[in-house]
Amino acid sequence: MSSGEVVPVDGRRARRDRNRDAVLDAVHELFVEDRALPTVESVAERAGVSLRSVYRYFPDTRELMTAALARRVAQADSLFELPGLGEGSFEERLDRFVAQRLDVYERAAPTIRAALALAPNAPAVAEQVEARKAHLRAQAAEHFAPELAGRTDEHAESVLAAVEVLCQFEALELLRDERGMTVEAARRVLLAAMRAVLTSRRGG
Amino acid sequence: MSSGEVVPVDGRRARRDRNRDAVLDAVHELFVEDRALPTVESVAERAGVSLRSVYRYFPDTRELMTAALARRVAQADSLFELPGLGEGSFEERLDRFVAQRLDVYERAAPTIRAALALAPNAPAVAEQVEARKAHLRAQAAEHFAPELAGRTDEHAESVLAAVEVLCQFEALELLRDERGMTVEAARRVLLAAMRAVLTSRRGG
Repeated sequence: MSSGEVVPVDGRRARRDRNRDAVLDAVHELFVEDRALPTVESVAERAGVSLRSVYRYFPDTRELMTAALARRVAQADSLFELPGLGEGSFEERLDRFVAQRLDVYERAAPTIRAALALAPNAPAVAEQVEARKAHLRAQAAEHFAPELAGRTDEHAESVLAAVEVLCQFEALELLRDERGMTVEAARRVLLAAMRAVLTSRRGG
Repeated sequence: MSSGEVVPVDGRRARRDRNRDAVLDAVHELFVEDRALPTVESVAERAGVSLRSVYRYFPDTRELMTAALARRVAQADSLFELPGLGEGSFEERLDRFVAQRLDVYERAAPTIRAALALAPNAPAVAEQVEARKAHLRAQAAEHFAPELAGRTDEHAESVLAAVEVLCQFEALELLRDERGMTVEAARRVLLAAMRAVLTSRRGG
């Protein structure tokens, strides 16, 4: 800043906001790259701000991690909607459901992975994760209402739980990340298993 | 130690080994209680040894966590065996398989949870986890060989992947821990879903 220049408060605030955003982005980027929570030093370096600035913006390191993730999770809200909920034939609904779950994984896996890793130590993130899971569970129940109807409550609950297990994030993680399946191979696994579970008339 | 007493080297070593074990036990206990890696301070307090001793036994904190878990994981080896592998009718094999997976979860969930949380940052633990998963996958393939036979390779692979998704640790975690199902309710979910998947003749 050259001497004599007038620095408007708004200008300083804008720069601070940009720096804060850069720090939050850096946390997320580093987590995605390393699959582990970054050090404050690496965050400062990646964001191009001083270590001191990072500590000034976020005195509490855990809060920094939480804020970075909470922002990304909130940005991903629209991903979790399922257009045409409950509409169409069973095969159409099945296709759409599996396609959506695969899409969420392909677009947001690193963020979700980070959120799940951080959740046990960050109540705010744990709440987001919980709310998301409850949303997805209710969505599955509504989408497959015809297949759940006409069963005992216990059996319907059991089928829904199996659907949840088959399409949870950790299922995609196993198929796509650990087993290295292509999206199409993972789709075939889920379509066949979901169809078998949802059309079976026999309980446990 | 009263003055004049002769301290044999073996006695010192025995005490050091006991203290080391106490430290390793403390790490595991605290992880189980808090579901998060403990601090070195809390480990020292729980183990009843000085902070300095903990650092002397384990100069590297991450190595301490890894050693504590590796020991527990190795102790759990026998849990992962499936007696009568591949023997009996489909329903008998199904019952035994699901019972074994539930048993592993009931007995070792805290240790497995800790191992999975630590794996991204501890290659030794990641290797143990990998080896265990490969073992369980091969076990499922052998146990359900009759149901996988007579399918195309692709379809057999897809059925096996669904079995893996349904019975992986994270599936049990969802049913037992997150949804709070009883062991019997979780058993019903898995039996019905596994039966549907393994007896379905249709691919994805």
